[in-house]
Amino acid sequence: MSEKIRVGIVGYGNLGKGVEFALKQNPDFELIAIFTRRTPAPDSGLVSIKSILDYKGKIDLMFMCGGSATDLPVQVPEIAAHFNTIDSFDTHAKIPEYFKSVDAVAKKAGTLSMISSGWDPGLFSLNRVLADAVLPEGHTYTFWGKGISQGHSDAIRRIEGVADAKQYTVPIPAALDSVRRGENKEFTTREKHRRVCYVVAKEGADLAKIEKEIVTMPNYFADYDTEVNFITQEELNRDHAGLPHGGFVIRSGESAAGTKQKVEFSLELGSNPEFTSSVLVACGRAVARMARRGIVGAVTIFDLPVGALSPLSADQLRKEYL
Amino acid sequence: MSEKIRVGIVGYGNLGKGVEFALKQNPDFELIAIFTRRTPAPDSGLVSIKSILDYKGKIDLMFMCGGSATDLPVQVPEIAAHFNTIDSFDTHAKIPEYFKSVDAVAKKAGTLSMISSGWDPGLFSLNRVLADAVLPEGHTYTFWGKGISQGHSDAIRRIEGVADAKQYTVPIPAALDSVRRGENKEFTTREKHRRVCYVVAKEGADLAKIEKEIVTMPNYFADYDTEVNFITQEELNRDHAGLPHGGFVIRSGESAAGTKQKVEFSLELGSNPEFTSSVLVACGRAVARMARRGIVGAVTIFDLPVGALSPLSADQLRKEYL
Repeated sequence: MSEKIRVGIVGYGNLGKGVEFALKQNPDFELIAIFTRRTPAPDSGLVSIKSILDYKGKIDLMFMCGGSATDLPVQVPEIAAHFNTIDSFDTHAKIPEYFKSVDAVAKKAGTLSMISSGWDPGLFSLNRVLADAVLPEGHTYTFWGKGISQGHSDAIRRIEGVADAKQYTVPIPAALDSVRRGENKEFTTREKHRRVCYVVAKEGADLAKIEKEIVTMPNYFADYDTEVNFITQEELNRDHAGLPHGGFVIRSGESAAGTKQKVEFSLELGSNPEFTSSVLVACGRAVARMARRGIVGAVTIFDLPVGALSPLSADQLRKEYL
Repeated sequence: MSEKIRVGIVGYGNLGKGVEFALKQNPDFELIAIFTRRTPAPDSGLVSIKSILDYKGKIDLMFMCGGSATDLPVQVPEIAAHFNTIDSFDTHAKIPEYFKSVDAVAKKAGTLSMISSGWDPGLFSLNRVLADAVLPEGHTYTFWGKGISQGHSDAIRRIEGVADAKQYTVPIPAALDSVRRGENKEFTTREKHRRVCYVVAKEGADLAKIEKEIVTMPNYFADYDTEVNFITQEELNRDHAGLPHGGFVIRSGESAAGTKQKVEFSLELGSNPEFTSSVLVACGRAVARMARRGIVGAVTIFDLPVGALSPLSADQLRKEYL
């Protein structure tokens, strides 16, 4: 691709900052502007989202880096009416409805929008489809972790007497090993993952009460074996500042002749938001290319030819990677 | 897809038989005919390749299951002039030239040909491109095995005094562990894989001489630590009858902020040819769909949207897999 892909970033939290970093590793992109809903400080270099339409024709693709709960469902349809977009919408149950709303706007506007990019949804989804297609008879398992769950950490922080907290989702080795041996068992929630919490209590708080509230919390913890560790704020800051994550997608199947076959994809991430950003940038390249070819509407990772994610030409890919 | 994909198989060795098996797990395909170069026995159900043009308009896609050395470079351009094709051409150095010859024929004929499908080239290639695109700064490592190398087994069988042999390619755990720890070292050939041979000697053969010929054989064994075990034909038949294989593609990289990130894809295959066949069938579905949309020429796994490999609709994939 001779011309650079001109991009904007909408939302400047962990994910937006991660995209800004990832773009530095990809010289075929040119970052034109970072948009914020806040009033930007004069020397911040950020641009108010109110001015976004001034960039029509100057930006090929917007990285939509808001949250899935409230930002993306509003912002993406608005902005897809004017720009190609890519986002990491991850509220699983609402994906079909979200796809429909973005697809309608993008088709009408003649833009292209990739939804739900990242690693799960994203690369994990891709591997689930791939492995199931290749081995139609078998079982697919997804394990997450070891890694920080932002949602679970937040849930602990809302408990009375808690000053701060981090929660790790940890896959259980016995289940992982059984899957890898191809035993194709069914597991309960409790058998697949456990939850390990590091909690900073406020002075004078009732630790036993906090622990009980955590381990019995419905949806979040009640169905898991949960370990609660009380530590100081200093310890939390020192030992649990990162946002590591990862996981495993494993399909264990049988060919028609009865032979066992296994496909495994795994990630071990020092930073969950930085990796999500890296995936967004690679997929963004494919979206920009597909948009140049006149493709419009909403798409997902299932619709992208994987070669389009690479900066290399099709000739180079065949010569060096096939 | 409402109508079945009508397919033929050209070549009825391990791979062709594997495709026949894999089609049984995929009810959206209909196997019309299996073609052979030999004179088919009257009750074999096989069809002479001389009659293949009688099937024009009756077969949507030909699974080309000949060998890469001599069959595919001749057969695929001939047959791509009349049918959509898919093959597993795996002579790495000749892929660009092969692609060009198939692409020219297919474009002229208005057919679609996927070349070099399978797992390596194939799924491993796909993962190398994906991981490199997502993590532009890092190292990618491919390990093969533990598995039977047909080429190396054949090379041993050609030695004087050898009645039969099987050779396993085995990844070396120390190298694999180093890669997984993200150390990004360079390895020599000897450090990454070792070779384990099971050899049946003819009566009265000079075992020491056979062993020396094996371990010093240039290209095949000289650059590796090679273990030679002499066993009986009964032991070989009993313990080494299968064609297991597999391997690992690991990319270990850093985000621009310096955080370590790791992507790993691995296969553990009870049968190498059966798995290759399973990949061919899933990719064949995508090829048939793309051909129906009017796409012509030669393509590789880099050009396929992964969703097209699945029998499920785009709606179902988004709902159930994203």
